[in-house]
Amino acid sequence: MSLVVVGSMAFDAIETPFGKSDKIIGGAGTYIAWSASNFTKPIKQISVVGGDFPQEELNALSARGVDLEAVQIKKDEKTFFWSGRYHMDMNTRDTLETQLNVLESFTPVVPDSYQDCEFLMLGNLVPAVQKSVILQMKKRPKLIVMDTMNFWMEIALADLKDVLTMVDVLLVNDSEARELSHEFSLVKAANKILTMGPKYLIIKKGEHGALLFHENQVFFAPALPLEDVFDPTGAGDTFAGGFIGHLAKTKDISFENMKTAIIMGSAMASFCVEKFGLQRLTEITRTDIDKRLDEFVELVNFDIDLV
Amino acid sequence: MSLVVVGSMAFDAIETPFGKSDKIIGGAGTYIAWSASNFTKPIKQISVVGGDFPQEELNALSARGVDLEAVQIKKDEKTFFWSGRYHMDMNTRDTLETQLNVLESFTPVVPDSYQDCEFLMLGNLVPAVQKSVILQMKKRPKLIVMDTMNFWMEIALADLKDVLTMVDVLLVNDSEARELSHEFSLVKAANKILTMGPKYLIIKKGEHGALLFHENQVFFAPALPLEDVFDPTGAGDTFAGGFIGHLAKTKDISFENMKTAIIMGSAMASFCVEKFGLQRLTEITRTDIDKRLDEFVELVNFDIDLV
Repeated sequence: MSLVVVGSMAFDAIETPFGKSDKIIGGAGTYIAWSASNFTKPIKQISVVGGDFPQEELNALSARGVDLEAVQIKKDEKTFFWSGRYHMDMNTRDTLETQLNVLESFTPVVPDSYQDCEFLMLGNLVPAVQKSVILQMKKRPKLIVMDTMNFWMEIALADLKDVLTMVDVLLVNDSEARELSHEFSLVKAANKILTMGPKYLIIKKGEHGALLFHENQVFFAPALPLEDVFDPTGAGDTFAGGFIGHLAKTKDISFENMKTAIIMGSAMASFCVEKFGLQRLTEITRTDIDKRLDEFVELVNFDIDLV
Repeated sequence: MSLVVVGSMAFDAIETPFGKSDKIIGGAGTYIAWSASNFTKPIKQISVVGGDFPQEELNALSARGVDLEAVQIKKDEKTFFWSGRYHMDMNTRDTLETQLNVLESFTPVVPDSYQDCEFLMLGNLVPAVQKSVILQMKKRPKLIVMDTMNFWMEIALADLKDVLTMVDVLLVNDSEARELSHEFSLVKAANKILTMGPKYLIIKKGEHGALLFHENQVFFAPALPLEDVFDPTGAGDTFAGGFIGHLAKTKDISFENMKTAIIMGSAMASFCVEKFGLQRLTEITRTDIDKRLDEFVELVNFDIDLV
């Protein structure tokens, strides 16, 4: 039984108020795999890259227990490229350039060896591509988690709504939750989105933490207050990787365990933003993660018995 | 031993995207007293009103254990008036009109019967007025908590910095923390402000909760996700009232108990925003407060043993 991750593997060029990166490795699928591989192995990756994607990056993922059988390498084409510039608040950004390249004609193929999929993480991609992966699964996974973005709400809403009926958990940020629901109040937005298919909704609020909604229950996980947020790129994907990684490790999809999984995701995201790109995720150890989890406990722990 | 509260008592006229109020009772001191009186009695109030301030409002406060000996009533003058309009996000607002009236020449006088002050809450006011109250205290209170606002940073910064050296806890919102420290990162802002005098700093982030900083420690209290935020007026003062009220009740000013006090403040603020003005604060019972505290525990409680 395994975790299958679908998502882009890409080159990014990033500008923040604090610095500028060269063309570095990025992509939702890459961040998810790096993050989730701290919790569970193997991770069965579905993606596509061009001939320009460095072999050593693929090797590094293999070494972490990421199975690349369904990562298509299109030798004569170029890898997906995105460049963006963050505003001072680090919560908003402008896209400077997008070159779809290999993503333009991406047709994922789920190999037989991936059919033992128990946990399926659909990283942000064209909704039709996400759907195609679900449809190729001969046995419905125990849990399907889906990320998406405002862009698909604007150009492929019908497809997006179709996929929503097939998944268990939806991950969006606050502005996307508002856009999808046409509600400003996040509680009202959540109530509406929970009628569209997903039984669980996670609303990510960047530096303001994340909310988990399920039926009439709500859980809040803070973001760790950091001296410097150096580069938020991939933080949402890293969060998703920690979330699904913990669930796949524990094989427990109760609401209680999802709370813990969200804290894992928040801890992983707090590392991601400390350096450019994937850098920090490649450095941290299990000891670093445990130490950060302790900081989360300290951050929110209070005693109400004094009342 | 008692809690002394200094703050404006006022008329407000409020517009939000969801409605518009008549001229209703407001003022930082009023909100603080209503909120804190759920926790401790007596509250010794210092303020000033005009002859137009309704006697029944004063009676209502008295009935809740608020001592009005140092509330000056200037029969021939008018009460402070503020009107404002909130934006859709309910976190930002435009001031439409301010009539200082009695506040223009407010000179607080601390009576002998207030000299047993153990907890002093300085609501948002001219820094020089806040200072004058501190200086009139013959014995330094056990804890001095101060609220302020960006306006004083712009027109009375030297006075404000002077008062900062005399207090234990400062309450500001996120944009005020940034303005006072010239730092964008709230962690850096906090570190700088903690060198200006206060040993504890609370940064209020509205719907995004509140942070408590002390030495190298940090605690985060969420705001309760609400279906509707009807009117945020007075939420910060209500928060302050719950915070100081709990501390005055328990007489414990440890960091641990301040965490609990911030949860109390957050719970009180979550009621305040549910209706226009003071309305909701006049309705709630101790049972309502206890129920809401349970919701806060539910909201942030997670189990890390599963890791």
